[in-house]
Amino acid sequence: MNHHEQRERLRAILAGRQCVATASVYDPISALIAQSVGYEIGQVGGSIAAAAILAAPDLIVLTLTEFAEQMRRIARVADLCLFVDADHGYGNALNVMRTIEELEHAGVSGLTIEDTALPLAYGQPRDEIRLLSIEEGAGKMRAAVAARTDPGFVIGARTSALRTEGLEGAISRVRMYAACGVDAIFLEGFEKLEHLEALHDAARIPMILGNNRMGHKREDLAARGARIQLNPHLPIAATVHALKEVYTHLYRGGAPDALKAMVASPADMEKLVHNDDYKRWLRQYMDG
Amino acid sequence: MNHHEQRERLRAILAGRQCVATASVYDPISALIAQSVGYEIGQVGGSIAAAAILAAPDLIVLTLTEFAEQMRRIARVADLCLFVDADHGYGNALNVMRTIEELEHAGVSGLTIEDTALPLAYGQPRDEIRLLSIEEGAGKMRAAVAARTDPGFVIGARTSALRTEGLEGAISRVRMYAACGVDAIFLEGFEKLEHLEALHDAARIPMILGNNRMGHKREDLAARGARIQLNPHLPIAATVHALKEVYTHLYRGGAPDALKAMVASPADMEKLVHNDDYKRWLRQYMDG
Amino acid sequence: MNHHEQRERLRAILAGRQCVATASVYDPISALIAQSVGYEIGQVGGSIAAAAILAAPDLIVLTLTEFAEQMRRIARVADLCLFVDADHGYGNALNVMRTIEELEHAGVSGLTIEDTALPLAYGQPRDEIRLLSIEEGAGKMRAAVAARTDPGFVIGARTSALRTEGLEGAISRVRMYAACGVDAIFLEGFEKLEHLEALHDAARIPMILGNNRMGHKREDLAARGARIQLNPHLPIAATVHALKEVYTHLYRGGAPDALKAMVASPADMEKLVHNDDYKRWLRQYMDG
Amino acid sequence: MNHHEQRERLRAILAGRQCVATASVYDPISALIAQSVGYEIGQVGGSIAAAAILAAPDLIVLTLTEFAEQMRRIARVADLCLFVDADHGYGNALNVMRTIEELEHAGVSGLTIEDTALPLAYGQPRDEIRLLSIEEGAGKMRAAVAARTDPGFVIGARTSALRTEGLEGAISRVRMYAACGVDAIFLEGFEKLEHLEALHDAARIPMILGNNRMGHKREDLAARGARIQLNPHLPIAATVHALKEVYTHLYRGGAPDALKAMVASPADMEKLVHNDDYKRWLRQYMDG
Repeated sequence: MNHHEQRERLRAILAGRQCVATASVYDPISALIAQSVGYEIGQVGGSIAAAAILAAPDLIVLTLTEFAEQMRRIARVADLCLFVDADHGYGNALNVMRTIEELEHAGVSGLTIEDTALPLAYGQPRDEIRLLSIEEGAGKMRAAVAARTDPGFVIGARTSALRTEGLEGAISRVRMYAACGVDAIFLEGFEKLEHLEALHDAARIPMILGNNRMGHKREDLAARGARIQLNPHLPIAATVHALKEVYTHLYRGGAPDALKAMVASPADMEKLVHNDDYKRWLRQYMDG
Repeated sequence: MNHHEQRERLRAILAGRQCVATASVYDPISALIAQSVGYEIGQVGGSIAAAAILAAPDLIVLTLTEFAEQMRRIARVADLCLFVDADHGYGNALNVMRTIEELEHAGVSGLTIEDTALPLAYGQPRDEIRLLSIEEGAGKMRAAVAARTDPGFVIGARTSALRTEGLEGAISRVRMYAACGVDAIFLEGFEKLEHLEALHDAARIPMILGNNRMGHKREDLAARGARIQLNPHLPIAATVHALKEVYTHLYRGGAPDALKAMVASPADMEKLVHNDDYKRWLRQYMDG
Repeated sequence: MNHHEQRERLRAILAGRQCVATASVYDPISALIAQSVGYEIGQVGGSIAAAAILAAPDLIVLTLTEFAEQMRRIARVADLCLFVDADHGYGNALNVMRTIEELEHAGVSGLTIEDTALPLAYGQPRDEIRLLSIEEGAGKMRAAVAARTDPGFVIGARTSALRTEGLEGAISRVRMYAACGVDAIFLEGFEKLEHLEALHDAARIPMILGNNRMGHKREDLAARGARIQLNPHLPIAATVHALKEVYTHLYRGGAPDALKAMVASPADMEKLVHNDDYKRWLRQYMDG
Repeated sequence: MNHHEQRERLRAILAGRQCVATASVYDPISALIAQSVGYEIGQVGGSIAAAAILAAPDLIVLTLTEFAEQMRRIARVADLCLFVDADHGYGNALNVMRTIEELEHAGVSGLTIEDTALPLAYGQPRDEIRLLSIEEGAGKMRAAVAARTDPGFVIGARTSALRTEGLEGAISRVRMYAACGVDAIFLEGFEKLEHLEALHDAARIPMILGNNRMGHKREDLAARGARIQLNPHLPIAATVHALKEVYTHLYRGGAPDALKAMVASPADMEKLVHNDDYKRWLRQYMDG
């Protein structure tokens, strides 16, 4: 499936009636495994990308280039749609345009641009969220929409307004951003179904939700316009846990064979690396 | 610890009397965890690099640039010595020189160059090992030695001669390669202690061994000149296994909380991303 | 113009009746200037790429990744079709497949894969050309054709057979390669019109020619199937010359103003960096 | 000469009594030619880097990664000291730290971090300079100094305060930045010798000057603490001019031979690509 087709598949989900859960992925291996168990969408969080690429926290120290390259590595081999967190677009509206250009080129299916002032300002407490003015936010959304070249590429406007400005402020923002031509609204910090309903009524475009901390039922979310719901970033934490177990065991002199139950089989590893494709290619193009 | 110091530490191991086991690592996260449990050396196999970066098998489709960049990502954050498999040096002796240049620049502590003809020739069966002539192999080793700029950088000559030419051929090769100025000999396909002894007697430089399939005792290997022994590539297979479990659970609607026992704690994740460093930097440089 | 459209334009030239001369380009600036004077095709020689990126000679020390990235830099901003020299495809047929993948992704319009054994073998004189067997060459061409995902992407088979095997050998090769599905034949070392005619008769696909050392008329070449003719690599040599003049002048304390006649005007420099686009974007998306 | 030695040479210039003029360079070729005519320092302006890499204007759309990679390309082959414009450090103080890390790793000898608020804010006129508060600027300078690992690496604080705050403001800033441990002050917008004198008296560290629009004598600048003076960015404009001439000539069907006087000789081109080194390496390591 080529990138345009993946984007159309993501659009079909946005245009549908279900609220689809995504897999949190961060590299080619995680994306391929998520895909193999049935996921249609792989999401890449900014925090997870920084952890995987730089072993750094979510403080905007990863560059656009580094992020785009990791996305390209995933998009090269994975068939699931990649839907990624492009933070604030790495600067002002001009940087947003490069963000769209680079991530579209990398092969992702869609992304979100948020209306938060980033990176942290001098003296700003780490947990304090500062929003851009609605006009500046809208400028960035319009720039994003203008910069895409594949009309299938999905652009979501992400706002934390519910956290900082309450429902009324959030309504103004989602209405404004929807008018900029974005394809979806990502609601950060959403908790109450009636907020989702009101914001969907205001935006009239599909809604995307982060972690479902409140445990709402998927159909209740879908009924209020939610089409995508992000899953928590547990996979990378499972990797860390598994690696720690294995390294500890081996470091202490434990037998490799004792790990059998917790490692993928050679056959699974061969599948992961597309060994059948390469075998076929060797036969077709190099078999003298 | 800077790269030169890491290289000196690797040299100290080669100059010591123990045979040290390495951790098979492949990205920043795996290297940091291996280091956290006590490993001094992280090894990166060519096959594992191809799997992690390209999801491709061990058929020399990864480029030197791609490999070097992944090594740089690891070397940026990890304190353990990186000892990596640079295959055949990505071409002829000139390419070997660039391999040394790029991997030294990436921050690895040492690498091996093998005397195998790679990539697969037209019509060559995938499992057939073809060695370069000993003269060509020696030319590559001399080129490697000449190309390093940090004298601490460790260069190992890797040979599969024991598999294809028997002990006598292997003796000629290790003697020749040692005379080229390499710092160690990597014996591929070693099985018998007396072979190790004979080859160490011939080379008179430290020996490095791959998987210890025969289960020799570490002190028996050390007594015959082995200073480094690679561990099997189980960590990446453990990652694959853990990810499959987690994605399957979540995809089927399983509760995130049910995964607690198999994921790293938030505190562990914070440590992984050096959160304390960043906190301190925020306080020191941005606290208005 | 997007990359697919550029490829279709290149195909239109191959399907036409003219023999079109290309501009030798090597970076974004050279490509943009070539385009500004009217060129439709920018060619990137392997030797020129190595010179521009690595300051290295034409000895296959540049990696595929480095080459692809430079091509991407050009393709980001230039509208002319990029037709590039991908040498031997950086290895065996599997490497050819990655070459197609990476250069197609970079946005080039077409490339050539040659049937020369590269890089230099141990002991091989630098100027000696060694061809792959015709079967191996054909395997690489079939691999190239199979690897493209945009059917518009142009693949040329480049052969030096005329130099090493004479007309008869060349005829066998171009016939074979054409049967593999390549879009054009690049004749290296061509001198006589009747050779071109015979080879075009054998291949029945468009012919591409390197430097026209013999000074044949363009219409004579076109009448015998040639559709593209490469221009000599003088532009990079002109850059070197101009830079030497300017640096020498300034180093000796010469007045900057004295250089006016040999430097582009501020207006030209603004055009080169797309200043009008950025001005418009600032106005549209950042004008508070 | 390795990077540490290049940095020591740059420090020797700062510690000397002369005011040395730099060459404006932008890629490996320009740097090698500048070096060949005698320059000891190659400067890379942010505007020139954006032009060469992205064909974009000086609006902070280039990423740190892209910039660092171009610097690495130059530092791989050039022996002159690279002294580069790292703009505002690509974000806040944490980004400054990555900037130091990446550019030090790339092999540059030194850089400047400026105290300007960048990129352009929403609604900010393009030509308006906005300074960070002096405290924020100082935080960035301290972060830069803390982030270097080679003590030879040169860090300059660049300020436009003379333009926006007058002499008094500038004095406060240079005094503060010098106290942060930077190695030099880059004065943007300097015009009067007495300003230079007053600022040098305040900072008591070496001064670096941009374009010498006022035509002050080099010894007058040196007597007031200036150790480096940037030359105007004419070389890239000369390249553009030369390329336009050559492409136009060839496009119109002009004879290649007619260009002889304006292109570098084959011998010069061979020297540029280090052909003698490669010849020697072929002889030493591949001569069967």
